[in-house]
Amino acid sequence: MTPPPQFNIEESRGQARSGSFSATGKYFSTPAFAPVATAGTLKGVTTDDLKPAAFNLLLANTYHLIVRPGVETVQTLGGIHKMLNWKGLILTDSGGFQGFSLAKKSKIDPDGITFNNHVDGAPVRLTPESVILAQENMGSNIAMVLDVCAPLPSSPKKLRESVEVSIDWAKRSIAARKRSDMALFGIVQGGTDSNLRRHSATETTALNFDGYAIGGLSVGESAQDMYTTLDHTTPELPVEKIRYLMGVGRPNNIVEAVARGIDMFDCVLPTRNARNGQLFTWNGILNILRSEYKSDTRPLDVTCSCPTCKTTSRGVLRHLIKAKELNYYHHATVHNLWFMAELMAAIRSSIQDDTFSELRTKVNALFAQQ
Amino acid sequence: MTPPPQFNIEESRGQARSGSFSATGKYFSTPAFAPVATAGTLKGVTTDDLKPAAFNLLLANTYHLIVRPGVETVQTLGGIHKMLNWKGLILTDSGGFQGFSLAKKSKIDPDGITFNNHVDGAPVRLTPESVILAQENMGSNIAMVLDVCAPLPSSPKKLRESVEVSIDWAKRSIAARKRSDMALFGIVQGGTDSNLRRHSATETTALNFDGYAIGGLSVGESAQDMYTTLDHTTPELPVEKIRYLMGVGRPNNIVEAVARGIDMFDCVLPTRNARNGQLFTWNGILNILRSEYKSDTRPLDVTCSCPTCKTTSRGVLRHLIKAKELNYYHHATVHNLWFMAELMAAIRSSIQDDTFSELRTKVNALFAQQ
Repeated sequence: MTPPPQFNIEESRGQARSGSFSATGKYFSTPAFAPVATAGTLKGVTTDDLKPAAFNLLLANTYHLIVRPGVETVQTLGGIHKMLNWKGLILTDSGGFQGFSLAKKSKIDPDGITFNNHVDGAPVRLTPESVILAQENMGSNIAMVLDVCAPLPSSPKKLRESVEVSIDWAKRSIAARKRSDMALFGIVQGGTDSNLRRHSATETTALNFDGYAIGGLSVGESAQDMYTTLDHTTPELPVEKIRYLMGVGRPNNIVEAVARGIDMFDCVLPTRNARNGQLFTWNGILNILRSEYKSDTRPLDVTCSCPTCKTTSRGVLRHLIKAKELNYYHHATVHNLWFMAELMAAIRSSIQDDTFSELRTKVNALFAQQ
Repeated sequence: MTPPPQFNIEESRGQARSGSFSATGKYFSTPAFAPVATAGTLKGVTTDDLKPAAFNLLLANTYHLIVRPGVETVQTLGGIHKMLNWKGLILTDSGGFQGFSLAKKSKIDPDGITFNNHVDGAPVRLTPESVILAQENMGSNIAMVLDVCAPLPSSPKKLRESVEVSIDWAKRSIAARKRSDMALFGIVQGGTDSNLRRHSATETTALNFDGYAIGGLSVGESAQDMYTTLDHTTPELPVEKIRYLMGVGRPNNIVEAVARGIDMFDCVLPTRNARNGQLFTWNGILNILRSEYKSDTRPLDVTCSCPTCKTTSRGVLRHLIKAKELNYYHHATVHNLWFMAELMAAIRSSIQDDTFSELRTKVNALFAQQ
């Protein structure tokens, strides 16, 4: 019998905590960062490349997989783990975020979201029930409920509607769920309005999900507004359940969220920024396109043990990005993901050693807006 | 003291022969195929990815490296081996071929070739002396002389001029050479004209190069014309020197050229075709874009031991190429290069076992024009 999803807190320092989350006999340590494999594949690295970086969680996007290749094809091809050649856990989002990010191609009504999909414009209809079924059929380990993610700023009326619809959809998602081995997380919405966040948290946690996400942040608000919202929201979530801040991946945002009690993250930022030339180092962000790196024989970061830093100098990386060579995207993505793996490991061990506040100060100094 | 470049023939069957070529204490077995790292990087795979495929020779393009990042930068960054993170041998071409492939951006005169380069249009001047110096400075193991590669068909006058200028440039190249550890190959031109080929071979071999290339083929002529030209040309080359057919990489063309006494090859075809969806298998070419592969859970080739065939089904590969995902280019390139490594190993062992004619028949049946 497959054990039910479980979250264990091993150590707490103030609001920050470290522990592990397990599902279907697999686990990841928290605080955790999930690299994003949007269309059932990472961008620029394979899961084999990623193994030594010790990630145990990836995220795939349900909307994208529904559009292409389609849930039925994912099933025929053996499910998302087989597609990704990945033995670790996989979290799938619900498509709610694409209702925000693809707002021009989508329409939200009280029953679901209709898209003109981004590939060929054909209609795609998502309902709370259809996305639970899709995630179950694709073999997700951690599924998310369909939600309404409002842009920031939004009118109070629009924010309130997004919360009420999301609560209704959360109830329908619970009712639709069939696979008990698949963890299911609720999502708290409410923009930067503390009353709405409290209301959303109260109603969502009453449904007893396996974990709780905070959605609707990192969508246009300032970092300070994000932090203030976390200050208001995490105390409304049950201590014993895992907390997931969706769509956040900048190192300083991560340490600030961990300090406010967040356990997991996902974001395209480390991989997308890598492709754009923004490389994460323990000296801050290095823009490899700068001409000063043209003849620089040093690795990106002398303290980094990633395959890129072991083999490829800054000068070579700059040449490769200028020439738009495929290997640039590979080398840069490997490096940024290694950095993220190292950052999360440092956060976890600093919580255990009670040195998290020093690490938090250091990461803020390196990555807070420059 | 670095030993001089050396070619050893171990076995001959008719015109076909197997052996090894060594320079600077490193060697590759022949017949050999060199994957192309145009701008000082392979496309879609790293040299680390390639190691288990047991290639010992790569080709880089001198013209491209002169244009970007520039020879001086290549030197500062530690030379082309360091750029490529490659311990094996590297052959550099001379830029003569780009006088053909970039004909609209170049002008050939008796003293050299002037380009408006393909990146920013700035003028680039190649002379026999300048390309020898560039190859020496970048750390090439096997350098090629600057030559004039005429398109086919060309007028008899134009073909003759290309041969005479190439002979003159070959003499100047020999005179310009300073590094004795770097092998230097002459190039026989002459289109499909057997008299011109004979003349070019006589004059070029009189200069006593470390090896001889046959250039100016695979530039528009039929396969039969290529084979007939090889029939006329290889007998004019010294038996004891290595023979290199430039720009040929289709498996059936390779076995036919080996049967006519060719020892080495380079071509972008296996890697470029991979990126376009044309995958080499021991059942012939598989076009992964075909809809029949949408739900196909089999590997590209059940007999293949490459990382792609071990991890990724045809259906997943088709999804990845349709979505233009970076990992498609990686998986496909790995596979086609593994196929080429396996093909060359099969050719070598078939010459040793005296089963080459069976292999030749088989490869022709699978890959001759479909």
